[in-house]
Amino acid sequence: MAKVTFLPANKSVEVPNGSTISQAAVAAGIAIESTCGGRGTCGKCKVQILSDAERSAGWVLACQYRVHEDLTVTLSESKDAYKRKTRLEQLNSIVLSPCIHKYLLQLSKPSVKDQIPDWERLVEALPDPNVCFNMQIARNLPKILRQSDFQVTAVLDGHTILAVEPGDTRSRCFGAAIDIGTTTMVVYLLDLNNGQVIDIGAVTNPQRVFGADVISRISYAAQGAEPLRQLQDRVIDGLNGIIAHLCQAQAIDSKEIYHAVVVGNTTMSHLFLGIDPTYLAPAPFIPVFRKAVEVEARELGLNILDTAPVVVLPNIAGYVGADTVGVMLSAKIDLLPGFTLALDIGTNGEMILAGQGRILTCSTAAGPAFEGAEIKHGMRAADGAIEGINITDDVQYVVIGDTKPHGICGSGLIDAIAEIAASGVINAAGRLAIRAKDCEKLPPLLQKRLRQTEQGGEFVIAWAQETETGEDIVLTQKDIRELQLAKGAISAGVEILMTEMGIQKEQLDRVLLAGAFGNYIKKESALRIGLLPPLPIEKISAIGNAAGDGAKMALLSTEERERASVLADRAEHLELSARMDFQEQFIKALSFPR
Amino acid sequence: MAKVTFLPANKSVEVPNGSTISQAAVAAGIAIESTCGGRGTCGKCKVQILSDAERSAGWVLACQYRVHEDLTVTLSESKDAYKRKTRLEQLNSIVLSPCIHKYLLQLSKPSVKDQIPDWERLVEALPDPNVCFNMQIARNLPKILRQSDFQVTAVLDGHTILAVEPGDTRSRCFGAAIDIGTTTMVVYLLDLNNGQVIDIGAVTNPQRVFGADVISRISYAAQGAEPLRQLQDRVIDGLNGIIAHLCQAQAIDSKEIYHAVVVGNTTMSHLFLGIDPTYLAPAPFIPVFRKAVEVEARELGLNILDTAPVVVLPNIAGYVGADTVGVMLSAKIDLLPGFTLALDIGTNGEMILAGQGRILTCSTAAGPAFEGAEIKHGMRAADGAIEGINITDDVQYVVIGDTKPHGICGSGLIDAIAEIAASGVINAAGRLAIRAKDCEKLPPLLQKRLRQTEQGGEFVIAWAQETETGEDIVLTQKDIRELQLAKGAISAGVEILMTEMGIQKEQLDRVLLAGAFGNYIKKESALRIGLLPPLPIEKISAIGNAAGDGAKMALLSTEERERASVLADRAEHLELSARMDFQEQFIKALSFPR
Repeated sequence: MAKVTFLPANKSVEVPNGSTISQAAVAAGIAIESTCGGRGTCGKCKVQILSDAERSAGWVLACQYRVHEDLTVTLSESKDAYKRKTRLEQLNSIVLSPCIHKYLLQLSKPSVKDQIPDWERLVEALPDPNVCFNMQIARNLPKILRQSDFQVTAVLDGHTILAVEPGDTRSRCFGAAIDIGTTTMVVYLLDLNNGQVIDIGAVTNPQRVFGADVISRISYAAQGAEPLRQLQDRVIDGLNGIIAHLCQAQAIDSKEIYHAVVVGNTTMSHLFLGIDPTYLAPAPFIPVFRKAVEVEARELGLNILDTAPVVVLPNIAGYVGADTVGVMLSAKIDLLPGFTLALDIGTNGEMILAGQGRILTCSTAAGPAFEGAEIKHGMRAADGAIEGINITDDVQYVVIGDTKPHGICGSGLIDAIAEIAASGVINAAGRLAIRAKDCEKLPPLLQKRLRQTEQGGEFVIAWAQETETGEDIVLTQKDIRELQLAKGAISAGVEILMTEMGIQKEQLDRVLLAGAFGNYIKKESALRIGLLPPLPIEKISAIGNAAGDGAKMALLSTEERERASVLADRAEHLELSARMDFQEQFIKALSFPR
Repeated sequence: MAKVTFLPANKSVEVPNGSTISQAAVAAGIAIESTCGGRGTCGKCKVQILSDAERSAGWVLACQYRVHEDLTVTLSESKDAYKRKTRLEQLNSIVLSPCIHKYLLQLSKPSVKDQIPDWERLVEALPDPNVCFNMQIARNLPKILRQSDFQVTAVLDGHTILAVEPGDTRSRCFGAAIDIGTTTMVVYLLDLNNGQVIDIGAVTNPQRVFGADVISRISYAAQGAEPLRQLQDRVIDGLNGIIAHLCQAQAIDSKEIYHAVVVGNTTMSHLFLGIDPTYLAPAPFIPVFRKAVEVEARELGLNILDTAPVVVLPNIAGYVGADTVGVMLSAKIDLLPGFTLALDIGTNGEMILAGQGRILTCSTAAGPAFEGAEIKHGMRAADGAIEGINITDDVQYVVIGDTKPHGICGSGLIDAIAEIAASGVINAAGRLAIRAKDCEKLPPLLQKRLRQTEQGGEFVIAWAQETETGEDIVLTQKDIRELQLAKGAISAGVEILMTEMGIQKEQLDRVLLAGAFGNYIKKESALRIGLLPPLPIEKISAIGNAAGDGAKMALLSTEERERASVLADRAEHLELSARMDFQEQFIKALSFPR
C-alpha cells in the first residue's frame, strides 16, 4: 500500500501499489476533472507531484501515473475545476432497494432418476420459480452448471433472470447511472450492495460533430435511418468508452454491471434509443414516447451485462425530459413544504414550480447564451475565461486560471450585464450608451470602452494588450440582445408558472438551481438583472448535478424509480408557444431593472 | 389466366399467366416433391408437359417453368413421390383463434393543444391500451404515422405490439408452421385469416454435413460455441431459404409472416435456439429446457417479421421432443376413446400410449435401421430402391421408379425380414441358414442365394446382372442383426408402456403410425416380424406428418397451443435405460415369430 495526500484539500488515502492517482483521488473523495474518460488524451487531470523522489514537482496525468510509494499531489488550482468537481455523494438518504438481486444456489445433480432439465432445476431452486425463460442464458447454462459443480449465483430483476454465474459472486454487484447531456455525458459507477459511488467518468457528447444543440442533431437525424443510427452509435460508443475505462480502473468486469438508469433531455433519450426524434423539432413538438422505457443492454449495444435492464426515466414533454424528472426526484420537489421553483438552464431552459400538490413545468429555448453560445467572445468556463466583472470608474475582471483572458464565460456574462446595467453603459431597454448624449454621463474610462463598429456598438471588457489573443475582448450590442432575450424568456416562463399556480414571487419559499448553471452563476448578479425572481439570496441554492443524482437514486431504489414515473405523470406541462400570455410576459421581462 | 391440368390425378386449375407450375400445383392441391425449396437445383420437381405447342412432351422443372397458355402436365410416376406427397389439409376441425390480431386505427392528429406522444396516441386507440413499449417499432413510428395520414394497422400478439403498418392491411396475415426433422425440414405457410395452408416447402436439414443422426450433431456442438453456432446457422439459413422461396412464389413479403410455431425432436429444438445440447447425449440425458419457448424472430435471425413470436412447442424429455407433442396434439391422443398407441419411428423411435386419462411416453435409439442407415445396401425410398419383396421358391422384388434396383429402402427391408423369416432363410433367432443342415431344407434357388463371405453370412436379394450398380444387392447377417435390434427395442418399448399402463396388447384400440415410417411401411410385414403388436390390421393406421400437423394447429389456435403444453405436462416419460425390465423385454422381443 502507498499513502497519497491531496493538496489543497489535505486529504490522505492508502491505496494498493500500482493504483493510478485518479483511483486514489476517487478513494479519497477528491474529484479530478477529465473529459477523455481516463484515456490520457485530454490532459485535464494534470496534477503536480511534490514528494516523489524521482519526479519532484513534476506534472503528470492522474489517470496514467501509477503510485508505487507515498506521495503528495497538488491539484491544478483552476477555480473552474474546483467548482466543477462532482461530489462523491453517499446518497445516504436512500433506503437501498435496487431491482437487482443475487441468489446463491446449490442445485442437486441430475441422475437417471432425476432428469429435470437444467433450466427447471435452476428456477425451481429460486425463492420464486415463476421466472421467464431466457434463451441467452439457457445457451451456456449446461456448461456453467457443470463447471461450478452445480453451485451458482443467479442474478434476478424481478421475474427476469439476468445471469447465472459460477460459484458465489454475491459480493460483486454494480450499476451505472448515466446522464446524457447535450454537451457532456457522465457515467456514475455504483456498488449496488452498499449504494456507494465507486467512480465517475465523463466525456464530451460525441454527437457534437453533428451540432452543438439538439435542433441541429434532430435535423441530422431527420435525414434518414443511417444518420439516426450514427447519432445513436456516437452516444453508445462514447458511453462504452467511459464504462470500459471505469471497469479497468476499478478492476470490474463490464458484465458485472447489471443495471443502468439513464437521464437526458427528450432528444437525448430518443437518440440514445435510436428512436426518430424528427417531430420533436417543429411545432407541435411531438415526442415518440413519454413513459419510462426499459430495454436490454444488448439491444442498444451498451457494454454492460447483455441482459441488464437499461431504464430511461420518463420524459414529460418534447423539451422537458428525463433529466428534469431526475431533478424533481433528487430535489424531492413534491415533498418540500411551500412553493419551490427549480431551474435547470443549460443549452435549453427547463423550469419546475411545485407546491399545493401540483407540479408545473415549462421550457424555453433561451438557454445557450448563458453558456457563451452565440456570444462573440463567449467561451465555456475554463482557464482564460473572464468569470467575474466589477465596474466602478473602469472595468475590473477575474480570470479563471493563472493566465491572460481570452473570452467570457456564463457567470462573467451575467456579471457583465448586471454591472453595465447598473453603471449606465446600457439603459433599461438594453441599448449601449453609444450616442454622445448617453455616453457623456459615464466616467471617462468607460466612455473610452464604448464604440461603434460596422457590425454595431460594442463595449470593451479587456483591452488587446491584456488578453491572450492580442485582441480586445468585447461585449457587442448583439451579445447583449442575446442575453436579454434569454433572460426575458426564462423570466417570462417563471411568470407563467406562477400565474398558473396562482401565486406571487414573494410566496416562493426557495429557488433551486440545478446543473452547471447553478454552480457557475453569481446569484447576486442573476438577481440584479432580473433573471431570478427578487428573493432574499439565502432562498436561492445550487443543487449540483441533480439530474444525475436522480438517476443514481432510481438505480439504487425501485421505489425511487417508481416515484420518477409518478412525478412525470403528475407534472402538468405548460406549452409556452401555445399561450397568448407568454409573449406579453416576455416583452415585459426584457428590460433591466436599475 | 391459363388452365393447367395435372395427370395422373386429372385435376385442373386456372392460374394467372406467369405462374410457375409449382404454384399451379399448390392451387390444385397437388404436391410436387422438392428438396431445394424451389431454387431449381434439386431436380426433384421434374414434370412432363404434354400439350404445350412449343415444348410438347418436354421435361421441365415445375418450380422454374412459367405458364403462359393452357397446358397439361404429367407428374413423375415415381410411387415414392406419390406416397411422399403431403396433403394440403384444410385443418377444418380447428376453431381459428391465432394469437395474432390486426386492428385498423384512425388516429387523431397532434397539435399544440394535443401533444400526446406518438406511442401513447397509438396504444390509446387500441381496444386494450395496456401494451408494452417496443423500441424497434417506436423507432420508425413517427414516419409511418405521418406517411399514412395517421391511419395504420396495428399487429398484436396479446399485449405485445408486433408491427404498425401504414393503411389497412388486415386482409394479409400469415404464419409459418415449421417441422425441423433430423433429416428433412418442412415449412408450411398458412393464411391466419382463414386457416388455409397456402404453400409448403422442404429441404434436407443442412446440418447433415455434421452427421446424419442427432448424436453426431450433439458431439459436434459439444466442441464449443462456434460449432454450436454453425449448427444453428445451418438450420436458420435453410429455413430462411424455404421461406424466401415460399414468399416469392406466393407474392408475400416475409415481414407479413407474423408468427411461427416450431416442432422438432429435443436436439433439433436445442440447436434451433442455439442452446448447448451437450448433455442430451450421455446418460442421464439432460435437456436444458422442457417447456414451450417463445422468442422474437430477430433473436434467431429467422427471416419473418423481426418481432414475430417464434414458439417452440414443449419437449417431454431428452429423446421425446416437441415433434412428439405435435403428434399427440394432432392425433388428439388424450381425447380418443380406449387405448391408443402412437409410434413415430424415424432416426429415433418415439412411442406414446394413451388411455384411462394417462399419457405415457418412451423412446429408443433403435430407429435408423428402418430408414436404411447402418444397412449394407440400405438407401432412402427413392428411384431404384427395392420397396417390396416376396419369397416363394425364389425372390421377387418391386423397385421404385422405372429403373434397375440399386439398394433397399425401409419398407423393402421389413418385407425382406418378414419373408426370409417365413421361408426359413433365417431361424427364429435371426441366424441365416448358412450351415448345410439348415440350408438343405430350403428351395434350391434360395440355397444358391445364401453364402458365407469373409465378413460373415449374406443372402442375395438381387443378382449383379439385374442391378443398376452391377453388384449383387445383399442382406448381410449384420444387417439382419441391426434390424433385429431395432425391432427388439421398439417392441420392448411398447411392452414397457403397456406394463406401465397395466394392459394387454389385445386391449389396444388403435395403433397410429406417424411420419414417413407410417407412410412407407407395409403393415402386414411389420405385423409379421412382430414390430407392431398383433392386432387386426384395420386397427393400424398411418396419420401422415402428424408432428407438422400439430405445429399448424398450434399456429392457428392459441387454445391448441395451450393444449400442447398441457399434453407435455401430463405426459409421463419412462426412461427405458433406467428400467430393469427393459433389457428383459428387449431380449424376448429379438426373436421372429413364425
